[in-house]
Amino acid sequence: MPRLSEEELIATIFAPLAGPGGLRLEDDAALLKVAAGEELVLTKDMLVVGVHFFAGDSPDAIARKALRVNLSDLAAKGAEPRGFLLGLGLPGDWQEDWLKSFAAGLAEDAAHFAISLLGGDTVRTPGPLTLSITALGTVPEGKMIPRGGAKAGDHLFVTGTIGDAALGLKLRQNHEADRAWIGSLNAEARKNLCDRYLLPQPRLGLRQALRAYAHAAMDISDGFVGDLTKMLRLADLTAEIDTGQVPLSDAARAALACEPHLLSTILTGGDDYEILCAVPPEGAAAFRQMAEAAGLEVREIGICIPGPEPARIKDANGEWLSFAAGSYQHF
Amino acid sequence: MPRLSEEELIATIFAPLAGPGGLRLEDDAALLKVAAGEELVLTKDMLVVGVHFFAGDSPDAIARKALRVNLSDLAAKGAEPRGFLLGLGLPGDWQEDWLKSFAAGLAEDAAHFAISLLGGDTVRTPGPLTLSITALGTVPEGKMIPRGGAKAGDHLFVTGTIGDAALGLKLRQNHEADRAWIGSLNAEARKNLCDRYLLPQPRLGLRQALRAYAHAAMDISDGFVGDLTKMLRLADLTAEIDTGQVPLSDAARAALACEPHLLSTILTGGDDYEILCAVPPEGAAAFRQMAEAAGLEVREIGICIPGPEPARIKDANGEWLSFAAGSYQHF
Repeated sequence: MPRLSEEELIATIFAPLAGPGGLRLEDDAALLKVAAGEELVLTKDMLVVGVHFFAGDSPDAIARKALRVNLSDLAAKGAEPRGFLLGLGLPGDWQEDWLKSFAAGLAEDAAHFAISLLGGDTVRTPGPLTLSITALGTVPEGKMIPRGGAKAGDHLFVTGTIGDAALGLKLRQNHEADRAWIGSLNAEARKNLCDRYLLPQPRLGLRQALRAYAHAAMDISDGFVGDLTKMLRLADLTAEIDTGQVPLSDAARAALACEPHLLSTILTGGDDYEILCAVPPEGAAAFRQMAEAAGLEVREIGICIPGPEPARIKDANGEWLSFAAGSYQHF
Repeated sequence: MPRLSEEELIATIFAPLAGPGGLRLEDDAALLKVAAGEELVLTKDMLVVGVHFFAGDSPDAIARKALRVNLSDLAAKGAEPRGFLLGLGLPGDWQEDWLKSFAAGLAEDAAHFAISLLGGDTVRTPGPLTLSITALGTVPEGKMIPRGGAKAGDHLFVTGTIGDAALGLKLRQNHEADRAWIGSLNAEARKNLCDRYLLPQPRLGLRQALRAYAHAAMDISDGFVGDLTKMLRLADLTAEIDTGQVPLSDAARAALACEPHLLSTILTGGDDYEILCAVPPEGAAAFRQMAEAAGLEVREIGICIPGPEPARIKDANGEWLSFAAGSYQHF
């Protein structure tokens, strides 16, 4: 089958995704108007097949995850999605069908999350498929939620449930040591965990509540304990968290019941893409109400306290837990 | 030697490059204020070692080229550089010294071109080193120079000289078939061509003149003939260009004198990073004057004429040239 040239590939596969600022992907650059009184929030995540995806993952899922991890950052900052740029490093054996399915997944999520393609670059790579997405959002001036803004006494909240994606990754890897707990789960639980690994849910619904009430926020992408420590350390704070307060899915509870050591995976594994935030006590009830009105469950997990030490986690017996690594190390 | 963790690497090597909007690279996102009456111009270029660089190229040169190819796009759009995000895919065997030198090169050019690091992402890759830079600039509202805005009768200008980088690449590759002309060049000519391949000169000095006079502009990165055709085709225009009008360096002339077939490499090879633009006849003299006042040589190469066919190039005897490929194909 004759291969599309770069120009044809852009014109037929990616140009249909371009918003007005994308200038039909015919120009050297994209154009974005930021309204008076607004500021631009920018984030960039790079993903590599074999590192952040399995080589056999479906192209539409790869596209959607790559976009969603960026949207998760925008959500944590309280930003409205505005547009994204896509860098695509294609191995020599790329197939047109693969790319069409990739673009279809991207188009589906771009429409769903109301963000349009602004531009990008496509190059050849002798390495694995590599994606680099830059996402842009806007906030009213001065309203971006910083990572380092927590204050002593603030209530700590997380969205959704923690640890599912890390368990989903183990499920996909299917190592000998994990066969017992994997085997103990029913098909629905296994599917739920795999889905949570493959398809993060950017918590964009929380952005108004964050802008209204939060002092600090970040998305949990490198492990709950490590990310909690990162956020608090920036404000010279720490926290003492009861394991029982950390929200877990039914599937994660079932896995944990079979294999208690998974608690470490759940609390320190990556890819949650939930939002962690600090809300002053007087705003806590209203924050929760606004989040729930937006269809998001939030769980209060503890209080910010002064101190330089890493956040500590207590088990059901009141013993402090220790972990080999607090967070996912990229290298 | 113990390796830096991701957090240490960002804090020690990249955070010193961060501008105010980069938030010390401690947040999930960067923040950029766009003044009222301005619009944002965005561009993204991805570069892969072994494709866009030689594996042995010095890390500071790799960093500088990656930034400069993005600045070249901003220059062509008439934009003021504002900030950039860096995506870095690192192979497992990365060395701290290599990264320090990379960051030093990036810092040098960022300072020189007055653009600061806003953020980015660092990941591990089993493939070759991969860079993805997103650069942001601003233009007064409505003043971005589009690629497709040329009008019949407009004068076509290019900056600098054409073909040097493509010859520099051949020089670096040093194939048997090229040894004769390479051997005929003196050391200075060889160095000039290699430098032009390794270190593009983004023509940011032209941005005021472009905003004042140009109907259309683009940077020539995929070959002069092909890029000229791309720009004109968007406006249903074409051009007939005398080879003698295309500006060549002394080194390119010397190579051409020894090997006339290099004309095709010069006119269709990539990596020029010169600016091609279309200026209405009544503004041509003032445009040239303003460019020269900014220290940039511009050469008038022809006139835009109506027509759907690709731009044509005439040799010194008035014969039309034909090329196997009008521009560099990325795959």
